[in-house]
Amino acid sequence: MERKNLGHMQCPVARSLQHVGEWWSILILRDAFYGLKRFDEFEESLGIAPNMLTRRLKGLVASGLLERRKYSARPPRYEYVLTDMGRDFRPVVLSLLAWGNKHFAPEGTSVVLKNIKTGKVAVPILTDKISGQEITSALFRVAAGPAADRAMRERIALQRG
Amino acid sequence: MERKNLGHMQCPVARSLQHVGEWWSILILRDAFYGLKRFDEFEESLGIAPNMLTRRLKGLVASGLLERRKYSARPPRYEYVLTDMGRDFRPVVLSLLAWGNKHFAPEGTSVVLKNIKTGKVAVPILTDKISGQEITSALFRVAAGPAADRAMRERIALQRG
Repeated sequence: MERKNLGHMQCPVARSLQHVGEWWSILILRDAFYGLKRFDEFEESLGIAPNMLTRRLKGLVASGLLERRKYSARPPRYEYVLTDMGRDFRPVVLSLLAWGNKHFAPEGTSVVLKNIKTGKVAVPILTDKISGQEITSALFRVAAGPAADRAMRERIALQRG
Repeated sequence: MERKNLGHMQCPVARSLQHVGEWWSILILRDAFYGLKRFDEFEESLGIAPNMLTRRLKGLVASGLLERRKYSARPPRYEYVLTDMGRDFRPVVLSLLAWGNKHFAPEGTSVVLKNIKTGKVAVPILTDKISGQEITSALFRVAAGPAADRAMRERIALQRG
């Protein structure tokens, strides 16, 4: 991967992208949320070249989002399952889903999210667990956290309307 | 870009990634949420090569996430501002921020989101605007929407625990 290492940056968005900032990785995680686990399942679903799939799966395991587990001893076979960290990525995928449904589904939605109990189609929004309010740019702003270095404080101070 | 065209896929996640599935694009959008607008501001913030920045900005304009506006006639100078579609991407960036803060900030958080009125640090969670409930995998599942074709229905039927 010829990408600049983003790890030295303090920004949590940049750090996140270091682990998933490649669209195959996000599609693999999407499929893992569908319950796919095996190499050939991902391969068929994604239409991805095997060497590329191997590389992306290795990356996701190295980053701690997927765990590689042996499910057959003879012949040795492995499956890839979401770790807690991987499962925590679901809101990102669902935010992408909501955004795609809003802007890139001119023929109508193909995938929706449903409340299992009510059967009703959900409208995913980001809210603040503390205040219960929807996170809008009018009411919520980024601010420096306790570990922010000077560069990060300067960046955040730049923030404007 | 040697990427497979994802546009033929019905999945809204895949379609979204076609427009932003490149980490530079997401970092440019992040900076746009900070209020950066000019080429040299993005360049300095990101440490990105000018030709790469030009390409990514063009892509974001072509996708409709940024609008290129002339802010000076002589010499002609342009700035890049978020469109409505671009602003709608904020929950994705904030979900990445929350995930990064949880898993990739061992030294403590550098960037937090604050409620402007209360000054309290927010805890962003994805909730359903209709039922008001947090979107957990136990309570919410993806389902076929009205425009789902057979391939999509089969994919969704695969879904399991």
